[in-house]
Amino acid sequence: MNRKMVFHICGQMLLLEAVLLVLPLAVALIYREKCALSILATIAIAVVLGLLIMLVSKPKDTVIYSREGFVITALTWIFLSAIGALPFVISGEIPSYVDAFFETVSGFTTTGASILTDIEGMSKGLLFWRSFTHWVGGMGILVLVMAVMPMTTDRSIHIMRAEMPGPVVGKLVPRVRQTAKILYIIYIALTLLEIIMLLFGGMNLFEASVHAFGTAGTGGFGIKSDSIAGYNPYIQWVMTAFMLIFATNFNLYYLLLIRRFKAVFSSEELWVYLAIVFTSIGIIAINISPLYGSVEETFRHAAFQVMTIVSTSGFATTDFNLWPQLSRSLLFILMLIGGCAGSTGGGLKVSRVVMLFKSARRELKKMLHPRSVSTVRLEGKPVDDKTISGVGVYFAFFVAIQLAVFLLISFEPFDFETKLTSVVACFNNVGPGLGAVGPAGNYAGYTAFSKILLSVSMLFGRLEIYPIIFVLSPSVWLKKR
Amino acid sequence: MNRKMVFHICGQMLLLEAVLLVLPLAVALIYREKCALSILATIAIAVVLGLLIMLVSKPKDTVIYSREGFVITALTWIFLSAIGALPFVISGEIPSYVDAFFETVSGFTTTGASILTDIEGMSKGLLFWRSFTHWVGGMGILVLVMAVMPMTTDRSIHIMRAEMPGPVVGKLVPRVRQTAKILYIIYIALTLLEIIMLLFGGMNLFEASVHAFGTAGTGGFGIKSDSIAGYNPYIQWVMTAFMLIFATNFNLYYLLLIRRFKAVFSSEELWVYLAIVFTSIGIIAINISPLYGSVEETFRHAAFQVMTIVSTSGFATTDFNLWPQLSRSLLFILMLIGGCAGSTGGGLKVSRVVMLFKSARRELKKMLHPRSVSTVRLEGKPVDDKTISGVGVYFAFFVAIQLAVFLLISFEPFDFETKLTSVVACFNNVGPGLGAVGPAGNYAGYTAFSKILLSVSMLFGRLEIYPIIFVLSPSVWLKKR
Repeated sequence: MNRKMVFHICGQMLLLEAVLLVLPLAVALIYREKCALSILATIAIAVVLGLLIMLVSKPKDTVIYSREGFVITALTWIFLSAIGALPFVISGEIPSYVDAFFETVSGFTTTGASILTDIEGMSKGLLFWRSFTHWVGGMGILVLVMAVMPMTTDRSIHIMRAEMPGPVVGKLVPRVRQTAKILYIIYIALTLLEIIMLLFGGMNLFEASVHAFGTAGTGGFGIKSDSIAGYNPYIQWVMTAFMLIFATNFNLYYLLLIRRFKAVFSSEELWVYLAIVFTSIGIIAINISPLYGSVEETFRHAAFQVMTIVSTSGFATTDFNLWPQLSRSLLFILMLIGGCAGSTGGGLKVSRVVMLFKSARRELKKMLHPRSVSTVRLEGKPVDDKTISGVGVYFAFFVAIQLAVFLLISFEPFDFETKLTSVVACFNNVGPGLGAVGPAGNYAGYTAFSKILLSVSMLFGRLEIYPIIFVLSPSVWLKKR
Repeated sequence: MNRKMVFHICGQMLLLEAVLLVLPLAVALIYREKCALSILATIAIAVVLGLLIMLVSKPKDTVIYSREGFVITALTWIFLSAIGALPFVISGEIPSYVDAFFETVSGFTTTGASILTDIEGMSKGLLFWRSFTHWVGGMGILVLVMAVMPMTTDRSIHIMRAEMPGPVVGKLVPRVRQTAKILYIIYIALTLLEIIMLLFGGMNLFEASVHAFGTAGTGGFGIKSDSIAGYNPYIQWVMTAFMLIFATNFNLYYLLLIRRFKAVFSSEELWVYLAIVFTSIGIIAINISPLYGSVEETFRHAAFQVMTIVSTSGFATTDFNLWPQLSRSLLFILMLIGGCAGSTGGGLKVSRVVMLFKSARRELKKMLHPRSVSTVRLEGKPVDDKTISGVGVYFAFFVAIQLAVFLLISFEPFDFETKLTSVVACFNNVGPGLGAVGPAGNYAGYTAFSKILLSVSMLFGRLEIYPIIFVLSPSVWLKKR
């Protein structure tokens, strides 16, 4: 492996993080908060460490392959979380480093699971940083780098593949850098649009930005212990709509921009996604109707909670842990499915569900007609057997890793439901689960061991498993080229 | 579809059930129990109904294809359960037909989940019938037919494939009938051996037979409300050993018989299976050691409970629902894995787990070396891509169906753990789950709707999904040849 190049890029990424930290620093200064110092200190640490790493690891050749792409991605995310946790610790607002690391990984991976018990006591600067990590992690930090600065390698497609979610990562345009740029422009435009719409609802700029970041990245960190419950219905509806938008495949927005409307409306993933969303809203609305006063209120809570789970954001307008069993079970299953491929949402992704369903149908057909030949098609294009078996294997990893983590944290004194949904909510980057980790609860009660394990689960989920496996494999590190 | 042939064979099967019912009738007569009448009445009903169906559906041609094989298998199991439930209802020992149906499906599918609240109040004849269904269902009723009487079709391999568990069903010898005969001879010999060994432990012939049936079929119905807890350690160890034996691939016993020892000892599935079993026993023994007095007792309970879950029998020598969380979570995961292919055990099967693991390893390799070609091998033989993708699809069905049933029964007033493990314990033919359906509990509290749904889950699990899907598909029924 080209180890020098791997660390070289990780060093660059730390410098980028220093730049990103300027934004929360500005917020802290505006509000004249003490946490500004801790952010400044972290910037200094990131710059020094980044330069040091880059200096030590001056690569002789800059060529990377998929192996390096995976490792760079995993390491970058781990480094950025490790350093990004420092402002919380230095300022003393989250005294334990493990807690701060959990919170930061939860931020970057757009999970939104929190160990905070007194969120209203946090400084605005750090609340901003917390939510800003959602925004950065949503579309991907390495994709951001590709968009804004010339990469030292021209093989950056390997990095993009490792960071972008979904079974098939396509380039919108032939050049990787152009693709990254287009994605980020759409992302920024939609985020700005949401900020403006939230401002109309009576939020101030700080609140609007923070919540727009949380929605755009489908993260779910808020600034109130009751999440979005205290905001007015208009704001709740706006956020519902934007969660729907950000969990949709971004390729579709590009197709809209270049006016290929037909391609958008014939997107199978889109229709399945919408069908899942609206069917779930309908079922839940009927199920919870006795709990709420008006039809509007019932549908608002049903729609918001379905979108928050499907998009794997994890905001809440009501404590869905208190809902009837049917609604809770449905939300649990929606956690596993998640949003569309190529969106900022987590989970298994709708396109994988569609592919599994189609290959299942083909399998049934083959059993009845052993000699028949049939092709699985997605979005009108034939899917090769390699991709299909890849989705099957991904699904097996998906289940096996979650079960393994569940087993490893099972010594914790919580009930079965709390622990299982903790794992599922972390791995699928949702955030709140059911039971003690429901919207009214948090992850503070877990031991440090479990917090680290759950942080790793979040990384597994956000980076879609393989980068984390490779970064943990000695054989990948040792292999000479 | 050759519908006439399908029903013709189902009619034959009802006649066979009438013959099988003679055994519990004899037991009832020996013990001079009133239930003898209800068994006699059921025999009459089975004979009349069977002959009627055979008369109405006289097939013009006897050729069947895989389509018919699946449907025959599914229908046979449903018919036999529907009629097999009658003695319980007619005798009044289980007044509700749905309850009796649940209990009989649970018997034939070797699940061992029970709705009985007063098992000691049941008559011996019906307790015998209940356990005998385990024995018949374990190796498969259609396989039994192939072994004992000339089938009206020479395409019976299609039926055998549909009924035998495991990803690849091979014939031991070129002729299907011979294979079925060999399997049943091994099965009978091992069952007799267990009866003899249990007699040595102080059981009477009735007890020994009933428990041997439950072990052989990996079913788990006992005759005491505390299952095996009241029996002496010798008996508990004997049953542990036989659960290990019956959840092993029967092909290995055939290989032993024809003295191909090397093939047995190089069986990958066997070694993985033993590794899973002994590792789990070790972990659980350490975890539960504070609860029991002696080392022998600790290991006995650990070994018994691990084997009862891995083999998907579902007996118990202690209430494992009261064990520490780690042990309970481990048992939950073992429920999903189950026994070896070609055994009487349920679950996903060890060989499928091995194949998923190997194809995952290949996938990782392919990601690092996109142009490399590597073959997955099992038991030394290369496995074709069709089989591998088939295992992936099976796994997807496996997860999806269990989640769907969980969703459908989620309106029930039990907790999350009880409901999830109910579905997993029924689908994987284990029997007892955790929470309210633990070894000390039962399924009596579910509504009739959920009982039927859980019965269908048991059939899904025992017949490995596809027969039940096909029998429920109108398109399969309507298709002309």
